[in-house]
Amino acid sequence: MTINIIWRIGVADTTFAQIDMYKAVEKAFEDAQQKDPSMKIEIVRYTVPGIKDLPVACKSLLTNNKCDIAIALGMPGSMAIDKQCSHEASLGIQQAMLMTNKHILEVFVHADEENDTKALIAIAHDRAYKHAQNAIALLKGRTILTPFAGKGLRQGKQHVGSLEKNSEKENEY
Amino acid sequence: MTINIIWRIGVADTTFAQIDMYKAVEKAFEDAQQKDPSMKIEIVRYTVPGIKDLPVACKSLLTNNKCDIAIALGMPGSMAIDKQCSHEASLGIQQAMLMTNKHILEVFVHADEENDTKALIAIAHDRAYKHAQNAIALLKGRTILTPFAGKGLRQGKQHVGSLEKNSEKENEY
Amino acid sequence: MTINIIWRIGVADTTFAQIDMYKAVEKAFEDAQQKDPSMKIEIVRYTVPGIKDLPVACKSLLTNNKCDIAIALGMPGSMAIDKQCSHEASLGIQQAMLMTNKHILEVFVHADEENDTKALIAIAHDRAYKHAQNAIALLKGRTILTPFAGKGLRQGKQHVGSLEKNSEKENEY
Amino acid sequence: MTINIIWRIGVADTTFAQIDMYKAVEKAFEDAQQKDPSMKIEIVRYTVPGIKDLPVACKSLLTNNKCDIAIALGMPGSMAIDKQCSHEASLGIQQAMLMTNKHILEVFVHADEENDTKALIAIAHDRAYKHAQNAIALLKGRTILTPFAGKGLRQGKQHVGSLEKNSEKENEY
Amino acid sequence: MTINIIWRIGVADTTFAQIDMYKAVEKAFEDAQQKDPSMKIEIVRYTVPGIKDLPVACKSLLTNNKCDIAIALGMPGSMAIDKQCSHEASLGIQQAMLMTNKHILEVFVHADEENDTKALIAIAHDRAYKHAQNAIALLKGRTILTPFAGKGLRQGKQHVGSLEKNSEKENEY
Repeated sequence: MTINIIWRIGVADTTFAQIDMYKAVEKAFEDAQQKDPSMKIEIVRYTVPGIKDLPVACKSLLTNNKCDIAIALGMPGSMAIDKQCSHEASLGIQQAMLMTNKHILEVFVHADEENDTKALIAIAHDRAYKHAQNAIALLKGRTILTPFAGKGLRQGKQHVGSLEKNSEKENEY
Repeated sequence: MTINIIWRIGVADTTFAQIDMYKAVEKAFEDAQQKDPSMKIEIVRYTVPGIKDLPVACKSLLTNNKCDIAIALGMPGSMAIDKQCSHEASLGIQQAMLMTNKHILEVFVHADEENDTKALIAIAHDRAYKHAQNAIALLKGRTILTPFAGKGLRQGKQHVGSLEKNSEKENEY
Repeated sequence: MTINIIWRIGVADTTFAQIDMYKAVEKAFEDAQQKDPSMKIEIVRYTVPGIKDLPVACKSLLTNNKCDIAIALGMPGSMAIDKQCSHEASLGIQQAMLMTNKHILEVFVHADEENDTKALIAIAHDRAYKHAQNAIALLKGRTILTPFAGKGLRQGKQHVGSLEKNSEKENEY
Repeated sequence: MTINIIWRIGVADTTFAQIDMYKAVEKAFEDAQQKDPSMKIEIVRYTVPGIKDLPVACKSLLTNNKCDIAIALGMPGSMAIDKQCSHEASLGIQQAMLMTNKHILEVFVHADEENDTKALIAIAHDRAYKHAQNAIALLKGRTILTPFAGKGLRQGKQHVGSLEKNSEKENEY
Repeated sequence: MTINIIWRIGVADTTFAQIDMYKAVEKAFEDAQQKDPSMKIEIVRYTVPGIKDLPVACKSLLTNNKCDIAIALGMPGSMAIDKQCSHEASLGIQQAMLMTNKHILEVFVHADEENDTKALIAIAHDRAYKHAQNAIALLKGRTILTPFAGKGLRQGKQHVGSLEKNSEKENEY
C-alpha cells in the first residue's frame, strides 16, 4: 500500500435544515476509509443559510477549493413557496454541475416526505449516507455503479429492485 | 469496404431506474452494425445514481470522452417530486446539448406511463432501441431522418402516422 | 438587378410531428422569391426525432451551417408530459437564440389546439407559412415589421387586429 | 449647457400585441427631454413577431446596436399556452440582461388583466410610459430611484404606497 | 486593532415594494460594526423598479462595483403573475451568483405571507436584518454558520430548531 488516492469532497449544508445530515456523510466517509485504508478523503465544508445558497457554495467548493465532487445537503419546507425554492435551487445545482463538469450530489429531504419525525430523520441520515457512498463511487470511475444500473436503488428508503427480475436478490451495496 | 466510420457513442444510465435499458441500446447498435459492417460503434458507458446526475455525465461523455453523441437513459418515478426532478434533468440536458453542440437523446420512461409492468418494460426497451437507432441516424447526417419528417414516429409505442395521409402506409423504419 | 441578396435559412423539423410543415415553409420562400427575384434563399434542412432535439439542431444550423436565421417546426402532443417537453424545448430555443444572437422562429402546433384534423392541418400550414414570411422580414431589417407593431397579427389563425382601432382595416400582410 | 448626455435606448415590440405601446414610450422620452433639454435620447426600434422573439432582439439592441438600455413591449394572450410563452420570454429576458450587464425593462400587458378594452389600453399606455421613465432613471444612476424604494410604485396602475406610512403622501413621480 | 477588514456589500431594492427593508439591513450592519469595531462595511445601494430588475442590478454590484456579496430586497405581490415574476427573478439571481461566484442573499417578502400589515412589516424587517447578518457571516468564512447547520434557523420568523434535539436550547444567534 504505497499509493494513496486523495479525494477532496465538498459538503455544503444549511442553517435552515432541521436535521444534521453532515454527520451521516462523515460517517459514510469514515466507513469507506476503514474498508479501504489506501483511500484518503479530505472534506471541505461550507454552511449557508438556505437551499438557494447551495448552488454557488458548491460551485465555489468545486472551483475555488478544488474539490473533486460536492454534496449539497438541504431540507426544503412543506409550503408551496418552499417547493418553488427547492426547484430553483435544483436548477442552480444543474447549472453549477454543467459549468464545472463535476458532479454535485443533491441530498434534499422534503419536510413533508414523512409525517413521523423519527422516520423523517432516518430518511435524511440514510439518504445522506448513501449519497456519500455514491460520491465515492463516482470518483472511482464511470462504471463503478454499472452493476447496479436499472436495479431500483433508493436513497432515504429501501431499494425497490428491478422490475425485470423481481425474483432476483438485490445486490448488496 | 476500406473506410470504416467509427462513432463513439456515450450511454449514461442510472441505478434509480427499475428497468435495464442499456441492453436495448446495445442490441440496436449490434443490429445496425450487422446491417452495415463498415460502421463501427464504440460505446462509452457512465452509470450515475439518478436522472439529475445524467446531464453532467452526458456533458462529460461528450467533452472529456470525446463522444459524438450521447444517450441518457432514465426512469422518473410517479410522484410530484419525481416529475419535478425529471423536468430539472431535462432542462440540464438541454443546456448540456447547447454547450457542446451535440445531441443527447433523452430516453426517459415514466413509471406511471403504464400500469402493467410487462407493458412498461416493453415501452422502455422499444424507446431505448429506437432512440439508439435515432442516434445513428443523426450521426449519419442532418437529413437521414427527413423522409420521416411529420410522419408521427413514436419511441416506446407504435408509430401513429401522419394526419395528412392516413391512408398512406407508414414507412418502415 | 445586379446584386443578389443571398440568405441561408435553417429549417429544423421532427419525425414526431404528424403534419409536414416544411412544405409550407418552402412554399412561402418560393412565393417570396417570385415577388422579389433579386432575393435568393438557401434552405439548410435538419430533421430530428422530437421537439427537444430542435434547440441544438437550430444552434448547429446557425453556427456550423452559418445560417442567418432558423425556423423550428414542432408538434407537441396533448398529454401533460408533452406540454412539459414543449416548455423545455422552448427554453432551449431561447438559450440557443441568446448564444448565437440570431432569431429562431418557433413554429409549434399543439395537438390539442383544435379537435378537427383538417382544421389542425390548416393551422399548421398557415403558421409555418406566415413564420417563414416573418423570417424573411426579420432578415431584411429591424423595422420591416414595424408597420404591423401592435396590430394583433396571428400565425395559424386569422389576424385579430388592434384593440385601439377596431374600425381600421387590417393591413394586408 | 455645453455637455449633452446622449443615451441610446432600444425599444422592441411585437406584431402580436393588440395595443401600440411604442407611442407611449416615445411620448415619455419627449416629455423627459422637454424637462431636461441637455439630455438627448436616441431610440433604436426593433419589431418582432411575438414575445418569445423579444429577448434576442433586446440582446441584439444592447450589443450590436450598442444601446445603453432596452425596453421590451409585449402583450401575452389569455390562454394557458400564452402564459407559458410569457414565462419563457421573461426567462430569456433575464438571461439577456445577465449576459449584457444591462437592464431590459419588461413591459408586458396581459390580455386578461382587465376585461374592459379601454381600461386595458390605459394600463398598457401607463405601464409603457412609466417604464420609459424608469429606463431614464436607471441610466442616470443607481440611486435615482432610491427616494421611491419601498414606496409601492406601480406601472399600469396607480401607485399603492408604502404599508409603513399610509398617512404619508406619495412622492410625486 | 491595527488591521481593518473592509467589506463592500451591495444592497439592491425596489420601488415596487411597500416596505422599506433597507433600513433593517443598515441597522444590522451598524450593530455588527459596534460589536466588532475592527470591521468596516461599505454599502453600495442600487434601487430598481421591480424584482425582475434585481438580478442584473446585483450582478452589476458584484462586478462593476466590485462588491464582495449582495443582498436583494424584494416584495412580490399576491397574484399568480406576481408569483411567476418572483420565480423568474429567483432564477435570475441563481444565474447571477453562478456567473460571479459570489453570494446574493435573496430577501423576498411575499405580500400574502401574512394578513396583518404590522406582522408583515415585522417579518420584512426581521428577514432583512437576519440576512444582513448572514451576509457578514458568509464573508467571514465558509464555516462561520456551521455551528448552526441543521438547527432550523428562520429569517422573518422565529427559529424552529432542530428536529433531532428539541430538548436542546437553540443557540443564540
